Amino acid sequence: MLKVGIYGGSGYTGQELMRILLRHPDAEVVALTSRKFKGTLISDIFPVFEGLTDLKYMDASPQEVAKMSDLVFLALPHGEAMATAPLFLRAGKKVIDLSADFRLHNLAVFEAWYHKHSAPELLSEAVFGLPELYRKEIKSARLVANPGCYPTSAILGLAPALKEKVIDPDSIIVDSKSGVSGAGRELQLGSLFCEVEEGFKAYKVGEHRHAPEIEQELSLLAGREVRITFTPHLLPLNRGILSTIYATLKKDVTTASLLELYRGFYRGEKFVRVYKEGAFPNVSSVRGANFCDIGMSVDKRTNRVIIITAIDNLVKGASGQAVQNMNIMCGLVESRGLDIIALYP
Amino acid sequence: MLKVGIYGGSGYTGQELMRILLRHPDAEVVALTSRKFKGTLISDIFPVFEGLTDLKYMDASPQEVAKMSDLVFLALPHGEAMATAPLFLRAGKKVIDLSADFRLHNLAVFEAWYHKHSAPELLSEAVFGLPELYRKEIKSARLVANPGCYPTSAILGLAPALKEKVIDPDSIIVDSKSGVSGAGRELQLGSLFCEVEEGFKAYKVGEHRHAPEIEQELSLLAGREVRITFTPHLLPLNRGILSTIYATLKKDVTTASLLELYRGFYRGEKFVRVYKEGAFPNVSSVRGANFCDIGMSVDKRTNRVIIITAIDNLVKGASGQAVQNMNIMCGLVESRGLDIIALYP
Amino acid sequence: MLKVGIYGGSGYTGQELMRILLRHPDAEVVALTSRKFKGTLISDIFPVFEGLTDLKYMDASPQEVAKMSDLVFLALPHGEAMATAPLFLRAGKKVIDLSADFRLHNLAVFEAWYHKHSAPELLSEAVFGLPELYRKEIKSARLVANPGCYPTSAILGLAPALKEKVIDPDSIIVDSKSGVSGAGRELQLGSLFCEVEEGFKAYKVGEHRHAPEIEQELSLLAGREVRITFTPHLLPLNRGILSTIYATLKKDVTTASLLELYRGFYRGEKFVRVYKEGAFPNVSSVRGANFCDIGMSVDKRTNRVIIITAIDNLVKGASGQAVQNMNIMCGLVESRGLDIIALYP
Amino acid sequence: MLKVGIYGGSGYTGQELMRILLRHPDAEVVALTSRKFKGTLISDIFPVFEGLTDLKYMDASPQEVAKMSDLVFLALPHGEAMATAPLFLRAGKKVIDLSADFRLHNLAVFEAWYHKHSAPELLSEAVFGLPELYRKEIKSARLVANPGCYPTSAILGLAPALKEKVIDPDSIIVDSKSGVSGAGRELQLGSLFCEVEEGFKAYKVGEHRHAPEIEQELSLLAGREVRITFTPHLLPLNRGILSTIYATLKKDVTTASLLELYRGFYRGEKFVRVYKEGAFPNVSSVRGANFCDIGMSVDKRTNRVIIITAIDNLVKGASGQAVQNMNIMCGLVESRGLDIIALYP
Repeated sequence: MLKVGIYGGSGYTGQELMRILLRHPDAEVVALTSRKFKGTLISDIFPVFEGLTDLKYMDASPQEVAKMSDLVFLALPHGEAMATAPLFLRAGKKVIDLSADFRLHNLAVFEAWYHKHSAPELLSEAVFGLPELYRKEIKSARLVANPGCYPTSAILGLAPALKEKVIDPDSIIVDSKSGVSGAGRELQLGSLFCEVEEGFKAYKVGEHRHAPEIEQELSLLAGREVRITFTPHLLPLNRGILSTIYATLKKDVTTASLLELYRGFYRGEKFVRVYKEGAFPNVSSVRGANFCDIGMSVDKRTNRVIIITAIDNLVKGASGQAVQNMNIMCGLVESRGLDIIALYP
Repeated sequence: MLKVGIYGGSGYTGQELMRILLRHPDAEVVALTSRKFKGTLISDIFPVFEGLTDLKYMDASPQEVAKMSDLVFLALPHGEAMATAPLFLRAGKKVIDLSADFRLHNLAVFEAWYHKHSAPELLSEAVFGLPELYRKEIKSARLVANPGCYPTSAILGLAPALKEKVIDPDSIIVDSKSGVSGAGRELQLGSLFCEVEEGFKAYKVGEHRHAPEIEQELSLLAGREVRITFTPHLLPLNRGILSTIYATLKKDVTTASLLELYRGFYRGEKFVRVYKEGAFPNVSSVRGANFCDIGMSVDKRTNRVIIITAIDNLVKGASGQAVQNMNIMCGLVESRGLDIIALYP
Repeated sequence: MLKVGIYGGSGYTGQELMRILLRHPDAEVVALTSRKFKGTLISDIFPVFEGLTDLKYMDASPQEVAKMSDLVFLALPHGEAMATAPLFLRAGKKVIDLSADFRLHNLAVFEAWYHKHSAPELLSEAVFGLPELYRKEIKSARLVANPGCYPTSAILGLAPALKEKVIDPDSIIVDSKSGVSGAGRELQLGSLFCEVEEGFKAYKVGEHRHAPEIEQELSLLAGREVRITFTPHLLPLNRGILSTIYATLKKDVTTASLLELYRGFYRGEKFVRVYKEGAFPNVSSVRGANFCDIGMSVDKRTNRVIIITAIDNLVKGASGQAVQNMNIMCGLVESRGLDIIALYP
Repeated sequence: MLKVGIYGGSGYTGQELMRILLRHPDAEVVALTSRKFKGTLISDIFPVFEGLTDLKYMDASPQEVAKMSDLVFLALPHGEAMATAPLFLRAGKKVIDLSADFRLHNLAVFEAWYHKHSAPELLSEAVFGLPELYRKEIKSARLVANPGCYPTSAILGLAPALKEKVIDPDSIIVDSKSGVSGAGRELQLGSLFCEVEEGFKAYKVGEHRHAPEIEQELSLLAGREVRITFTPHLLPLNRGILSTIYATLKKDVTTASLLELYRGFYRGEKFVRVYKEGAFPNVSSVRGANFCDIGMSVDKRTNRVIIITAIDNLVKGASGQAVQNMNIMCGLVESRGLDIIALYP
């Protein structure tokens, strides 16, 4: 039984890790920390756990948690994770960080979009935790940077086409729409029910921090620098990201042949579902599940392809992918604990 | 491996049975019928199943399905189930009927609220499938009438207090609120998104067909005839029923002592969660899970108790409870396949 | 042109006052205050006003605002209004207070449910601003206490039946459901989108501060002390309160005769709509409008009546009713500026 | 007083015309037809009108309605309007058609995307009813083709930039998201609450009938043929369209200078609001109002501009724009009856 710690588990990603791990046959959560909720049962904060666990939030140091755990998930705000991860690594523990602190390999890019980095020496060691691209590296990693939700939806949607040079890397536009849980459980005016319900808007137009993360990975796939236009929007719903991706075609492909290419690229992948021609993803088909669904259509009139991907931002976009990484890192069956069917309606 | 058929599986309860049974370790769905969707993959109708099953809807007779199955769920409209159940019983198969056709023991009451009954001889044999009250009878039943969603929420909320004669049976008011999936997947004006979103209303005031079902069970619990006032309302959300129940106290109890009574009554029950004093259920805490959550408050000023229960109408209010009944009828562990944690947010 | 000030206008009720008053033919908002948003255009806080007004929030003392205005709306938190109202009155201005500070006539009751009162001498002078009951008193009032949203829905639903002694005052149960805007625009965990969406719960069971306000008015109508059971619930929608009210009948009435009684009681009232038999209100039919819609059904089987009322909590439950009071106090046509048709869907 | 008929008024656009026209100081609805609801009060179908009008649906021929009206709105399905409009024109009445039947000037294009046209001779006469572009033509028109909702949002967002040749016409991508009321009030599976709530998807990818309508107008603005990529999506909300538009820049502009260009282009327009730099529209800021809000950002890194527009699909996208056209055609003040402030929250 793998002993797992969750460091900073009072938000939605921490709660989602608990939902998955409480039903994981090979792992056990031994520590769950929160300064704010210290001493409180997690079931008092999240009543979904009522009767299912006696786990309480503790206010423990990384050292204390390290003693109890084989692997630790960091569900901390950006900036705090970089200070905490080294302590766990030093104690010989594996770390999966759900923040952005170790996702960018280039220190200058990180500091331009975020702030000063306190553990830059780890940037090159950290593995970008997208199993469909980096399974081998994750297997032997000490530190995995769990990808952002938007990047997961964009990169999985573009990887086969970019790698096979089907599309022009300079033409990529990613129009993404996310549910509100992506903003976390912090008190912010923009997350109030009445500010969101029956509303829809773009935000951080041209300045969202997930852009450099997407560009890093697309550049690696394309073998050259890629710059994209990325526009995030806020959907009036709890969970889900749908990304509508546009690119100009460089090769003469049909929808059918492109789908075939994608099916080949993702052959054997349990958590990527390539749709048949004419079918397109809906975030409600992945709600609560670890899938990334992909559909597409070639628009001959304009020589563009429209690729649409859907994930649950808290699952494949965060905690589900983190557990997938844990399974890989610890030699467990990769889909262990993740055979959840989406809840519909 | 238990072989299970779902007869009439094109609606939300059929889909929910599939969600649960596809992950049930001891049961396998071998037949799924729908005249409308004959020959179509269930994953084409409900993309949540994409990649998870190759099951297709078939248009098969009860006799054909009986040959393949050990037990059959009827997810048919009222009126059709009564014509179909006898065919399965005759073939020696166990039947769990999710319609209202076999819930009322009294033929006259049934025909007053519904229509003529074509299999009245089965009314006395059918067991009302509320395991917390009728576990023993379910164990040996051939035909289980799976309770209605509103009745499940009302009866579980009142059973201990009525049985212990803490409340006046003539004073009971049940104010229930249900999500839209309770209306099924049929095309009705009142189920359109724009008719429901940002709206809230009562419906069928004083004439909902679940009233006699609730009264039948409350009367059995009280040992005398009970008549209630029952008002259903439509919530602008997918899943969940919250029932706010009012009754006048006959005994001198406190909230604490009443909660203690409930905890005793439901001791050992895996799917009833009695809350601590001051805590009250929310439908979002049972979304997708098989629990009935119960909270309450004694109002000394008016000598009333307010009991609040929450269920997911598609799970404990329909398909989850049906699988719970299946487990009992077939000698499986009662919670098998039902250890689902609610999805939040 | 009536010169109007809004003191404390940064929340939803202040915004709603602006929406109504900007289109009021006989009134003009001359001052709008907010410490937090001092110097900011209201259209920068609420973009619905973009291009429609150049009004900025100012941080002005009551004395300064009094100089500019004939009448002032106080949209302040409870506790602050009691300190502010006397200053405006002393300056000879009319005041409509949207807080709870002057709604209760009995000081002891107020202080038991709220806190110490700093202007108790005004409690007897303040008029409870429900025009359908106190039009004459409002006409000559200096200080009007605008009713709470829940009380408006409960009192209008019960007034005719109580006054005509059709129902037993000891039997009244008010089961109310409110949209989230009733909680205001403050940052609270319980108002976050993800905490509310797809959820439904009761809150402050047996302890909501609107109970004594409802009881005060029902007691006056009944001519004796009335105690009720009142349970508020939170709906996952922006606007609207639906109250489902239960009472035992003391007279032999039918639904038709009771509706007739209500129609007589509210004859000539522009903002109360009594429905025909078999029809029941929906909050979506009053969204944005100043109506209180009322429907009902007599349940012969249990000798109870079920009365259902719907209002928009921000309009008839707050700012619309406040403008109605302003019109009455200032000798304007009572419906002036309030002929708004509900927005549907 | 202008006498107005609404031919086919049982859907949301008919209802919305009524909401606006009942408060229009210079117009009066004298006839409202519906075969289905013949003889029924509109307030029985849409309770928002309870107490506000005695108007009943009638099943009258165009000839009968023509006798009573000066101007007629056609709120009929595509295909029926083309058969009806000529009858009103022959009777000497002005016609505003809310269907797509007369929006495309080119018969071959119409028949390729829709079906055979029964009144092709009117295609060249009909004026595309976008007042900001065709005010002069509308003034003297007999037949106005009210624009589609998506086209309104796209064309107003692109007109200044295209006309001034700031953007490359071959680079235009329109990613639009619409509320469910855009699908009308017909019974369709995809419009059921449970199919939409907590979901989000693209639909009719690359084949939506509004594409040729947008292209027609963009081509006229650009002075050459324009082909766009257009992807509509379905938002889980009642009202609103947000279009996120991408185009490659041909001139060296900044966000500020482009906004200045837009402000100049729309100077004097009452219903177009160009936002300041850094501010972006939200559909909730135009809910129920006739505005088209526009914001934008120049992305220097990729040499693209991102233009975002928001309208209420039932108002500026349908009935509000239709009334605006009526005012122009009949010599009334253009904004008459349309000074509605959006409802928020």
